[in-house]
Amino acid sequence: MSRFGFLGLGIMGRAMAANLVKAGHEVTVWNRTPNRCAPLAELGAKVAGTPRDVVEACDITFAMLADPQAAQEVCFGDDGVLEGMSPGKGYVDMSTVDAETSRQIAEAVTEARGRFLEAPVSGTKKPAEDGTLIILCAGDKGLFDEAGPGLSCMGKKILYLGEVGQGARMKLVVNMIMGGMMAVFCEGLALGEKGGLDPATILEVLDAGALSNPMFRGKGALMLKKDYAPNFPLKHMQKDLRLAVSLGDELAQPLHSAAAANESFKAARRSGLADQDFCALYDWIRKDS
Amino acid sequence: MSRFGFLGLGIMGRAMAANLVKAGHEVTVWNRTPNRCAPLAELGAKVAGTPRDVVEACDITFAMLADPQAAQEVCFGDDGVLEGMSPGKGYVDMSTVDAETSRQIAEAVTEARGRFLEAPVSGTKKPAEDGTLIILCAGDKGLFDEAGPGLSCMGKKILYLGEVGQGARMKLVVNMIMGGMMAVFCEGLALGEKGGLDPATILEVLDAGALSNPMFRGKGALMLKKDYAPNFPLKHMQKDLRLAVSLGDELAQPLHSAAAANESFKAARRSGLADQDFCALYDWIRKDS
Amino acid sequence: MSRFGFLGLGIMGRAMAANLVKAGHEVTVWNRTPNRCAPLAELGAKVAGTPRDVVEACDITFAMLADPQAAQEVCFGDDGVLEGMSPGKGYVDMSTVDAETSRQIAEAVTEARGRFLEAPVSGTKKPAEDGTLIILCAGDKGLFDEAGPGLSCMGKKILYLGEVGQGARMKLVVNMIMGGMMAVFCEGLALGEKGGLDPATILEVLDAGALSNPMFRGKGALMLKKDYAPNFPLKHMQKDLRLAVSLGDELAQPLHSAAAANESFKAARRSGLADQDFCALYDWIRKDS
Amino acid sequence: MSRFGFLGLGIMGRAMAANLVKAGHEVTVWNRTPNRCAPLAELGAKVAGTPRDVVEACDITFAMLADPQAAQEVCFGDDGVLEGMSPGKGYVDMSTVDAETSRQIAEAVTEARGRFLEAPVSGTKKPAEDGTLIILCAGDKGLFDEAGPGLSCMGKKILYLGEVGQGARMKLVVNMIMGGMMAVFCEGLALGEKGGLDPATILEVLDAGALSNPMFRGKGALMLKKDYAPNFPLKHMQKDLRLAVSLGDELAQPLHSAAAANESFKAARRSGLADQDFCALYDWIRKDS
Repeated sequence: MSRFGFLGLGIMGRAMAANLVKAGHEVTVWNRTPNRCAPLAELGAKVAGTPRDVVEACDITFAMLADPQAAQEVCFGDDGVLEGMSPGKGYVDMSTVDAETSRQIAEAVTEARGRFLEAPVSGTKKPAEDGTLIILCAGDKGLFDEAGPGLSCMGKKILYLGEVGQGARMKLVVNMIMGGMMAVFCEGLALGEKGGLDPATILEVLDAGALSNPMFRGKGALMLKKDYAPNFPLKHMQKDLRLAVSLGDELAQPLHSAAAANESFKAARRSGLADQDFCALYDWIRKDS
Repeated sequence: MSRFGFLGLGIMGRAMAANLVKAGHEVTVWNRTPNRCAPLAELGAKVAGTPRDVVEACDITFAMLADPQAAQEVCFGDDGVLEGMSPGKGYVDMSTVDAETSRQIAEAVTEARGRFLEAPVSGTKKPAEDGTLIILCAGDKGLFDEAGPGLSCMGKKILYLGEVGQGARMKLVVNMIMGGMMAVFCEGLALGEKGGLDPATILEVLDAGALSNPMFRGKGALMLKKDYAPNFPLKHMQKDLRLAVSLGDELAQPLHSAAAANESFKAARRSGLADQDFCALYDWIRKDS
Repeated sequence: MSRFGFLGLGIMGRAMAANLVKAGHEVTVWNRTPNRCAPLAELGAKVAGTPRDVVEACDITFAMLADPQAAQEVCFGDDGVLEGMSPGKGYVDMSTVDAETSRQIAEAVTEARGRFLEAPVSGTKKPAEDGTLIILCAGDKGLFDEAGPGLSCMGKKILYLGEVGQGARMKLVVNMIMGGMMAVFCEGLALGEKGGLDPATILEVLDAGALSNPMFRGKGALMLKKDYAPNFPLKHMQKDLRLAVSLGDELAQPLHSAAAANESFKAARRSGLADQDFCALYDWIRKDS
Repeated sequence: MSRFGFLGLGIMGRAMAANLVKAGHEVTVWNRTPNRCAPLAELGAKVAGTPRDVVEACDITFAMLADPQAAQEVCFGDDGVLEGMSPGKGYVDMSTVDAETSRQIAEAVTEARGRFLEAPVSGTKKPAEDGTLIILCAGDKGLFDEAGPGLSCMGKKILYLGEVGQGARMKLVVNMIMGGMMAVFCEGLALGEKGGLDPATILEVLDAGALSNPMFRGKGALMLKKDYAPNFPLKHMQKDLRLAVSLGDELAQPLHSAAAANESFKAARRSGLADQDFCALYDWIRKDS
């Protein structure tokens, strides 16, 4: 059985690492602020002082870091992943990073004769705790197979999508659809409301039919309360729509609806809603001035 | 207990009337081609020779007719609904008709001192058989209450939305959201496919997350097989988007995403897909010329 | 030489009728408020008391009325055009009216065995005074030819476009292009301004190149001064865009850009700019909330 | 009086350099293929063997090179501009290059203590020959003033727009407006044509009114003949629209119309029209499949 490492114990990483440990795997963890390691140690994890130590001690190391910058520092920094890398070892980066960062890390690990897997996840805190994330893997197929027993503790749906970059691309496609759905959902609610229908009833009708989905249900209830506390900030959604439209430029795929949604999110972002949840688009679409 | 009538025994009407009868109600049915009445008679329904006879024999008469023209003929024609109407009787038109037709029928019934309820449904053959339609009622509130025991045999979700016209309006809002979702769904699938992702895997990822919905699941599978057999024809979806955008003009509600979707469906309609299912939009969005 | 009549001496009609008289034609005029006739009488026109009198006294009667309602009253009202109509007489309606009004008047005139020409104009006060209007004729070709000596006093460009309705349709196409040009013009100015360019310099560059046109020049200068005094009200532009998009629905012609412009004008209309000039779209496109 | 250099004698550069010489300036020219220099020599220009020689011999050197790659080679290559640069000398790059290339050249020239001016032009062969280009300058203000006597031989409109990058940005704004105008122009022609109007007549009406502009006139005539010989290739127009929309993302300026035009040009590009003139968009907008 593989020895697993886990780097990054934030909200997501902590829950994911705990699921690995609870499933009986031998796990060594590291976090920049060491006190976050204590709860994992109580569950039975070993604690290491640097990413390098983790990589050296384990066959396969998972990472769940806050952003591209953190992902790069942990990989390329002093006592980082690369310093511990040696032929055959696996590195599975589950952080959400841009394509360029992913490619740089993949190249560096491969040059050190290690194996690399990009594995961004879809899902937030609750699915992380429940081990029901969707994990979008791309890169070394052998590593994907070997990491399987670990990944299956963290996710309910684990997909292998091909070469490095395809995991991030899948996430972009899904987020683009999410943004487009949100835009037309807001428009429908606003149109109905202007036309004398009760928005709560519209939600009820939608939820009873073929369009029923967790996002309309969850976000819809919040939107009617004007509760736009950020879960996925509007500016990040607009960034993903922008990247999707650009990918369409690159691949010569017209995207009239996604482009229209992008402009509406951009207008919402400009109107002061950038840091609210992306469902705050509703506020821009409804307003009369 | 009210005596119920039922006019129109097509695919939908037959199943709906059967559910009324099976629930133990006293039901009198009529259909333009009389042999369609036989299965209902076997279940215990009475059969009448004209709409007028049905209305005269019953307290509340439901109608499920093919289109606005049929709805008008059955109401205004010789031996039609109006000839049997008298003070206090109820007429519940569940057909999908335009706002103008609905208003005309409402006025005529009301002038004859009858009571009128517009009650278009959301859902197709299967929910009609299972008694799980969504029924969008608008018009006479007293009639809505009295028709309740009948409606609840046919639908799982029965809503009262206010004055005549609001039922049709709710359906328009829902269909507009459906069209917009379909447009961005097609764009996402096409973008992913051009970018090297397997469309079947995209469906799998979508279905595992917060966007999961019966339409993506059902239509998605057909789209990958290029099975565009018409369930809801593309030209009808485009018509609903057009009506929704026009309603936005009337109510001064901008609808950038719905308008973009409308133009894409229009282009698809022009390209020869008018009579295919509305998910055939995928064919237009994917194609390279 | 034909005897000409002229009905309606508003800002436009007064100037047009004056050009007819100055060119040496025999002209009989009428206006609802009779004192408007005096200046024409001074130039040599005869004055009549009713539209009927004008039509009876003349071979061809031109009309330039304020709106569809006025056009209908003057035609169908007591002592109106129809009462004076007789076989062979011509009626040339130069008012801007909807297709339905035009069709009704055409039918009534034709039934009275008169001849009808729809002839909406493009151009405002100055071209009317200078006799340099663009006149978009449609209807009776023989009448078009006979009216030529009169029309050529009023316009520099006189076109025959076919059956009744095509004049209005041409005007719609031109206004749609005008609305779309204005939308992207506003976007370009706003983008440049946000990017540190001086809008006045952008106007200068545009005016020096292949895009140079009187609208950018004239409206552009006003827009930089935020002078939105209505010449062509924004709500009328949005109405024309709406009608053009609907015509696209009818003819199965996708209009992605015009539809996007329509939604932006709609949003501007909602934001309180409905009665400003249509170039006030700039205000909506620039603003940050 | 400044001694001027000129690098690059293609279709544009040849005409521009000739205007400099004819105006009586002392001009030294260079071209990669030396035989292009002969006509200039006949007019009185000196000929140099390398860009370095030109820069060393002159106070101010103009360059008009084919693309960003050529601009970089001429600047950074062996015997290139930088090798001849010394304190106080001026370099005016009139080539159309991306912002990044412009910035790199600007930095290198400035580090060598030379002075830099970015000066892309608007206009093609004919205005280059007539000395009626529009020249969009940005960078060193002192150099702009000193280069004035030279620039005024080449252009009728010479603008100073601020720091390096603003020249390219102005060009982007103008091209975005051009693309948006073309999109709605094509839509209007197609709509009119479908509605029974003669496209040639639509052009005539447009040209007689407030929208009249050289592009509609020139391109319109070609479009009706389906003559799409590339003057400005469609793929380049789509690239500029993409860059403009991205600039809108960066500056938080929504651009609904430009974004819609971008998607339509993208679809046209995909349909096989990438290398045709950008007015070939008409072909995509008109076609029925």
